[in-house]
Amino acid sequence: MEHILVVIPVQDRHKTYLESKAPNAHFIYSSPEEVSDEQLAQANILIGNVPTKRLHAPSNLRWMQLNSAGSDVYCQPNVLDSKTILTNATGAYGLAISEYMLGVSLSLQNKLFLYRDNQREHLWRDEGNVSSIEGSTTLVVGLGDIGGSYARKMKALGSYTIGIRRTATDKPDYLDELYALSDLDELLPRADFVALSLPNSSETYHLMDERRLLLMKSSAILINVGRGTAIDTDALLHVLNKGHLAGCAVDVTDPEPLPPTHPLWDAPRMIITPHISGFYHLPETFERIVRIAGENLEAFLAGKPLRNVVDFSTGYRKR
Amino acid sequence: MEHILVVIPVQDRHKTYLESKAPNAHFIYSSPEEVSDEQLAQANILIGNVPTKRLHAPSNLRWMQLNSAGSDVYCQPNVLDSKTILTNATGAYGLAISEYMLGVSLSLQNKLFLYRDNQREHLWRDEGNVSSIEGSTTLVVGLGDIGGSYARKMKALGSYTIGIRRTATDKPDYLDELYALSDLDELLPRADFVALSLPNSSETYHLMDERRLLLMKSSAILINVGRGTAIDTDALLHVLNKGHLAGCAVDVTDPEPLPPTHPLWDAPRMIITPHISGFYHLPETFERIVRIAGENLEAFLAGKPLRNVVDFSTGYRKR
Repeated sequence: MEHILVVIPVQDRHKTYLESKAPNAHFIYSSPEEVSDEQLAQANILIGNVPTKRLHAPSNLRWMQLNSAGSDVYCQPNVLDSKTILTNATGAYGLAISEYMLGVSLSLQNKLFLYRDNQREHLWRDEGNVSSIEGSTTLVVGLGDIGGSYARKMKALGSYTIGIRRTATDKPDYLDELYALSDLDELLPRADFVALSLPNSSETYHLMDERRLLLMKSSAILINVGRGTAIDTDALLHVLNKGHLAGCAVDVTDPEPLPPTHPLWDAPRMIITPHISGFYHLPETFERIVRIAGENLEAFLAGKPLRNVVDFSTGYRKR
Repeated sequence: MEHILVVIPVQDRHKTYLESKAPNAHFIYSSPEEVSDEQLAQANILIGNVPTKRLHAPSNLRWMQLNSAGSDVYCQPNVLDSKTILTNATGAYGLAISEYMLGVSLSLQNKLFLYRDNQREHLWRDEGNVSSIEGSTTLVVGLGDIGGSYARKMKALGSYTIGIRRTATDKPDYLDELYALSDLDELLPRADFVALSLPNSSETYHLMDERRLLLMKSSAILINVGRGTAIDTDALLHVLNKGHLAGCAVDVTDPEPLPPTHPLWDAPRMIITPHISGFYHLPETFERIVRIAGENLEAFLAGKPLRNVVDFSTGYRKR
């Protein structure tokens, strides 16, 4: 009998749904904080992110379903056994995070952050010209569920969309052009919006250094929702203080959390949010995670291929 | 020979364009502030909003093209002669104002205004749950170019769209349902977003009174870009302070400008901007105004029907 350990905060209707996919299995419900070593050692299937330090490549574990899209830390040595299948929650976060990205795009473009500051001072003051999404060019770097959902929205609002992914094949309909990461330098000068939605890797560390920030239009907007390390924070501060870029919005920082004394808090034309665009803040995100887990559970027990299988060697989804 | 008086801030390329539409006319360029009584008396065609107090139903004026979408003040007695044709700039502002409306929708929904306040205090603090446009229901009251453009964007982002206009005929594709204003009370409880984009009239004065505000869902968002008087400000303050509504964003207020001591500035979950969503803040808005004026000029001289003719008796466009 399969031992299925669930550590995501399911309600009764979620339990009913999951159990309907595995009627003969033994379900145990816990949380990442309260789960016991014994429960972890016994589990054949694990649904939810248990802290990596609690996992020592458990030999009974045949499949682990993450509740996160990021999976890099679970690919490190001695976290999971090489025979354990790892799947992530790609597809759950696209809606919430792409709406956040659209929100900060428009906040910067329409100067809503400045008007908020003025409102708090009871100041009826015109802050001048704005720009529009319609007629703009959007460059999305990283075309997972999140970057792809943002590109689709920008396209629907009249932006010309350019995407970058590791291999520039199979251009989706919502992109006008598709390139590989090696083409980034040629594309940056064309974009009004540059949106980064990248996993943590040596390839993406400080991808936006000072040289690349300066390749962007002075009127452009930079958005980062992947990992804070994709941007060189010092370089960003430097170019913003020089008057370069119309604005930058980040939901991830380096260091993270951003210390209270860090100068980035007060950088001009900067929007900082505390890594809140994902999580379970949008109730639909959690519903999607449960659906992915349930569909994968059904497939796993039927010996069929799972969705979102992570390649341990790259930390990315297998394609 | 036609005397054409232009008081909008045209550049040389705009002059070349307008003059190409009336090669035999005499063009005079001025501004609403600097235009002389003599120029006004002589003009057969006037392009741009001259203050109403400067107009005394000039008898030579055969056509006036406004640069604004609102036209109610020009329909009052002794401003224009009853034989003068009045056209407005409907179609010029939809892009700028609908992107503003989308921006404040997402700012409220994603609590970006709260995160802005936290950022200024260097506070890395999670403000909890959000909601999404996808899966929401949007009620647009007033389906001119502005309301229609907003509805189209919300539909493209996955909202279910309901529209209200004076006569509930000819449902556009971007609306799921269309009603008349008399159906408002039945529709308010269904909406997650209620967007007002209405001209000033006795019909729209205090349309959103306390009773109707309370008909809205407690979790709903209210947006007003038409005239400030469409909302009863005291009632709005009252319901917000009681915890009703997830938020309200207004670019127009009553009184306007909002005095520095007015309590609305500090109302909870309230976004106030100083009537900036339109104007010429988006350069494309001005380009559109010039195109409308040029196309109407060509039609006028050819004796063909003009676009955006205002009905003096209603203050609305003739349909």
